[in-house]
Amino acid sequence: MPENMIDYRSDNTGPAAPEILEALVRANEGTALGYGGDDWTRDLQRRFGELFETSVRVFPVATGTAANALSLAALSPPWGLVYCSELAHINVSEVNAAGFFGGGIKLVPVAGSHGRIRADAFAETLAAIMPGQSHRGQPAAVNLTQASDLGAVYRLDEVRAITELAKGRGLKVHMDGARFANAVARLGCSPADLTWRSGVDILSFGATKNGGALCDAIVVFTPELADSLAIQLRRAGQVWSKMRFASAQLLATIADGLWLRLAAASNATAARIAAGIAGIPGVRLLAPVDANLLFVETAAGTLDALERDGFLFYRRSRTVGRFVCRFDATQAEADALVAALRRHAAAVPRAAE
Amino acid sequence: MPENMIDYRSDNTGPAAPEILEALVRANEGTALGYGGDDWTRDLQRRFGELFETSVRVFPVATGTAANALSLAALSPPWGLVYCSELAHINVSEVNAAGFFGGGIKLVPVAGSHGRIRADAFAETLAAIMPGQSHRGQPAAVNLTQASDLGAVYRLDEVRAITELAKGRGLKVHMDGARFANAVARLGCSPADLTWRSGVDILSFGATKNGGALCDAIVVFTPELADSLAIQLRRAGQVWSKMRFASAQLLATIADGLWLRLAAASNATAARIAAGIAGIPGVRLLAPVDANLLFVETAAGTLDALERDGFLFYRRSRTVGRFVCRFDATQAEADALVAALRRHAAAVPRAAE
Amino acid sequence: MPENMIDYRSDNTGPAAPEILEALVRANEGTALGYGGDDWTRDLQRRFGELFETSVRVFPVATGTAANALSLAALSPPWGLVYCSELAHINVSEVNAAGFFGGGIKLVPVAGSHGRIRADAFAETLAAIMPGQSHRGQPAAVNLTQASDLGAVYRLDEVRAITELAKGRGLKVHMDGARFANAVARLGCSPADLTWRSGVDILSFGATKNGGALCDAIVVFTPELADSLAIQLRRAGQVWSKMRFASAQLLATIADGLWLRLAAASNATAARIAAGIAGIPGVRLLAPVDANLLFVETAAGTLDALERDGFLFYRRSRTVGRFVCRFDATQAEADALVAALRRHAAAVPRAAE
Amino acid sequence: MPENMIDYRSDNTGPAAPEILEALVRANEGTALGYGGDDWTRDLQRRFGELFETSVRVFPVATGTAANALSLAALSPPWGLVYCSELAHINVSEVNAAGFFGGGIKLVPVAGSHGRIRADAFAETLAAIMPGQSHRGQPAAVNLTQASDLGAVYRLDEVRAITELAKGRGLKVHMDGARFANAVARLGCSPADLTWRSGVDILSFGATKNGGALCDAIVVFTPELADSLAIQLRRAGQVWSKMRFASAQLLATIADGLWLRLAAASNATAARIAAGIAGIPGVRLLAPVDANLLFVETAAGTLDALERDGFLFYRRSRTVGRFVCRFDATQAEADALVAALRRHAAAVPRAAE
Repeated sequence: MPENMIDYRSDNTGPAAPEILEALVRANEGTALGYGGDDWTRDLQRRFGELFETSVRVFPVATGTAANALSLAALSPPWGLVYCSELAHINVSEVNAAGFFGGGIKLVPVAGSHGRIRADAFAETLAAIMPGQSHRGQPAAVNLTQASDLGAVYRLDEVRAITELAKGRGLKVHMDGARFANAVARLGCSPADLTWRSGVDILSFGATKNGGALCDAIVVFTPELADSLAIQLRRAGQVWSKMRFASAQLLATIADGLWLRLAAASNATAARIAAGIAGIPGVRLLAPVDANLLFVETAAGTLDALERDGFLFYRRSRTVGRFVCRFDATQAEADALVAALRRHAAAVPRAAE
Repeated sequence: MPENMIDYRSDNTGPAAPEILEALVRANEGTALGYGGDDWTRDLQRRFGELFETSVRVFPVATGTAANALSLAALSPPWGLVYCSELAHINVSEVNAAGFFGGGIKLVPVAGSHGRIRADAFAETLAAIMPGQSHRGQPAAVNLTQASDLGAVYRLDEVRAITELAKGRGLKVHMDGARFANAVARLGCSPADLTWRSGVDILSFGATKNGGALCDAIVVFTPELADSLAIQLRRAGQVWSKMRFASAQLLATIADGLWLRLAAASNATAARIAAGIAGIPGVRLLAPVDANLLFVETAAGTLDALERDGFLFYRRSRTVGRFVCRFDATQAEADALVAALRRHAAAVPRAAE
Repeated sequence: MPENMIDYRSDNTGPAAPEILEALVRANEGTALGYGGDDWTRDLQRRFGELFETSVRVFPVATGTAANALSLAALSPPWGLVYCSELAHINVSEVNAAGFFGGGIKLVPVAGSHGRIRADAFAETLAAIMPGQSHRGQPAAVNLTQASDLGAVYRLDEVRAITELAKGRGLKVHMDGARFANAVARLGCSPADLTWRSGVDILSFGATKNGGALCDAIVVFTPELADSLAIQLRRAGQVWSKMRFASAQLLATIADGLWLRLAAASNATAARIAAGIAGIPGVRLLAPVDANLLFVETAAGTLDALERDGFLFYRRSRTVGRFVCRFDATQAEADALVAALRRHAAAVPRAAE
Repeated sequence: MPENMIDYRSDNTGPAAPEILEALVRANEGTALGYGGDDWTRDLQRRFGELFETSVRVFPVATGTAANALSLAALSPPWGLVYCSELAHINVSEVNAAGFFGGGIKLVPVAGSHGRIRADAFAETLAAIMPGQSHRGQPAAVNLTQASDLGAVYRLDEVRAITELAKGRGLKVHMDGARFANAVARLGCSPADLTWRSGVDILSFGATKNGGALCDAIVVFTPELADSLAIQLRRAGQVWSKMRFASAQLLATIADGLWLRLAAASNATAARIAAGIAGIPGVRLLAPVDANLLFVETAAGTLDALERDGFLFYRRSRTVGRFVCRFDATQAEADALVAALRRHAAAVPRAAE
């Protein structure tokens, strides 16, 4: 990448936090039983248990897609319906992995805003289910993306409104926490409050987007779901024989609050940009900037000009750009983006749109 | 693990080669496009192409199970039959991942010896297929484990005898190379000769058991199979967003012949033990020691005594132990095992069996 | 069912046409090779070929769900996207059988009207597909329900506008013809014009709803799709060993234009009711009555009163009733419904809604 | 088929019993709720409950493959192991439908004789399962083919020895009763004794091979398995909308003991042939003739001569022929086969083999 480029393409274009790779390298000592029978993986169970203030089962996996799809496969029978946002990552960006690993699970969109589902819309959906309508499939679970793919964060009461509806119908709850750290950092609540104390059965715990390298994790709060998930993970080719190198990464991620510091940093960068944009005529944010994502709508010419300047980001359309802040993005980079937006927005004739 | 233990449990209980982790750490520089759009992964294609003397597609994956199952899913329709050894890893140790990822693929055992299939038995199996027998499934592919799960290595002519039969029936050929390095080191042939020049369409390239850390690879020699495999890998949650950290490991694995030096070392340890055992009364090797595995049959008491001595290994039965040599096993460890076997075999009354 | 009830619940609550059962009984003569190796099934290929004016492969199956799901599985890879109406039968009423039989196929709704998709909306959907976006899945096929689940029929030019878009992107075309006979009867076109001459690759040929008893059929116009479909059908438990009893039903269905006479009859009943309703204040049809279905919106009290009268039909909501006309519905039954609607609509205070 | 041919190819090449088709035709009266909500299907539950002396759930399905595969999918998780005979129909003749419908179920052969598994071999298999060996899959169920594909019948004590072992390990039990009628007729026991009283959870109740036309059935004895099976059947396209035409067939099958009379007839024909063969030099039966199948080993020339005579049967090899007796086979046909065998066996020089 040329020197002068500033990269807002994704949080996964970034480097890993040095602490995480150092932990990985330190794990390269002596021999250790394979497939998770090692000390690091044992320790991982304990440390995540402390972090979440309850007994949990933690399974390191290679990717967020694996975490999500296998979590849902553990929560739903193959003929199950899983409710989610139309914009949920599982619905639009994972090649229907949930349908595949779940043996035919069907995702059913529920209305909402900015990638979140709304409790009242979910209530309506549930109310419309007729008893015995086997030809539609069996309502099985609901998926919440926290933070959402548009960068919005569910408040605790919003989560609970949905999980209560779910529990009332016997549905299980999955939280896609690819950016869970950003949500926790934003809300300032405890990880426990945002998950099992609010009715979440299984969490996809994202590490990669938040300074990780090669693994994410599944955290199971509902014990009876864990044993068969363990077999499914093995079958899915998601159980490393040298698991210690994955567990060591995850241990480092949560050690001394690193994960929250990293998330707070990327959140802060996004908030700084959002604040800077606020006053610029012709530049609009399409979603709340609760986490580290910004969806910026402005004249196509303004976005073109940013690209010419060397800013890297994804166009969602001619007039909408997505900007993702990494944990290692600098204030200078944030300010450079704001300044450039301000400059180009002023220069581009808006009537030309 | 206590100080005095000597670990022969598996090649995946061992550490990673330092060169591989160093390369991983060095890749932590700047930003890079996700999901394999980075320079390391691009370089990986080229370097593997040089190694195999032909254009290839290389896909890093988390585990050997993923490599095998997704390779087979690329080679066979969901209603296909895949022929393999009764003892093949895909048949006994991967939770039927091939059947799962393949959407119903059925594995059909073919007779042979020491985890290899025999060409003549394969010919008989193929001859027994009646045209139009759709109720049995569609013959689709054959799987060769090289080296086999019992540590035997197919010679080049043995590979070719089988692949010629396969090609004659329109079947594709998959090589499970979890210990491919050991086989190449043993045979002294080129990687090209052992694969595509001998009719192999896809190779599971094992790195983990041979000093790797967190990834293996699929190497595709038949170009038209690669594009749909790429989508299947994405759906399978096997495409890391920060792929560079995987590709960097694989680049280091094959740089300067590291992979062959590591495999030669573990092979040599196994050969040293085999030679030492040769003269011991009451101790017998159950399979050729072509790679880094030894299956030792002896009095149960002898194996018990080894365990008391602190040797770690797996019992396949009361009287059979499997000993796996890692790349970092020492000559002293090898000699210690031989000496202990000799000592205990002499002490244990064989009639007591 | 009590004497005085008039049944508009579904076309599958009705009897079979006597000609069809008679043919089934006549097939009970002598022995015949199993699994479709019989004379009836051979004859079936020829007769459907004549009907469709081209060489076809016809596979009898037990149900429309089987016909649809297995057709789609033949048209799409397991990671494929199949475009369809939000209201398509495959999307809402078949327990995601397409996703199951297709090994992970994902259905993607396209906008339109009355259960049909619109060509311009389909064009937009296709235009939004970005090259190389493997994380969304592979665009593979489009499904047209003809007639639609709301009783609307695509005109020939509407079908062609969609199939041309599909072909332009390399997509295959499936027509769900659960009510294909009603559509052909309505349009007065040839079966060939409505299918392969308009770009349809595979047709689910509905017989059950149109006077059939125990089978529907898959008609394959694109020969290279047929062989693997045959194996999939066998695996799906959809190949009767005594196939002659199914083939005989289908032969009778199309003999002497029976299928079109039956469909014309049910269409005519629906049209008679629609005409009768036209002038009634407070009673509204929600979709064009092109086939044998009527969706009637009126005061809840009116629908309640119909139920008390003994009319059987499904409520889609408090104020919407679905009425389906069977081939054996009588003019008297049609007139009774219209009269009752007129009477109750007049009596029910509309402001009370 | 030419006049002078005598057909021993299969029990599914035969006609349907007239009583069964007459019942089907009689069901064509009035309207009836679809998908099994009709009186015939309700009656079916009651009548089968009486037949089996317990409350059951009966699901008509199109084929035996569907019955078997969906039964196993109801008994095993997708990562389950199902034990069966090497020669079981599910293992060799159903295109791995069990693996497909079961989402990755793996069939594991157990030793035995003539298509049956032996209790002692099953005990050994179970004993070899190591706790926690998740890489092999989860032991889930055992399948018994009664009568077996070689025509042998398990005695009651043999069934119980196996089911007790299964229950002791928490495994479920499936009986493939494609020829269940033949087994009951042979043993003279009650259907209840041979199934749930002996530990069977689900039975594939074969009707087609025993004078049926277009359906078999799944009979569920373990109530908690039935509800999800009902959804799976719907998804599998195995729930006819005009179910009454299937249920009527099954009602006729068991009315007044028809099914046992038909099975007794085909058994008797087979026994008559077996008795006739007994004394013929050079002609040998390869399996006990407990049901309606005979596997005859004799000189290839003898089998060739039978074919020239117009006898239809399947060659399992040059010197082995399979002869299947239909319910409508006559004593004259049986005697003709014996006479021909005797004549040709005498004429063919056995040394010429």
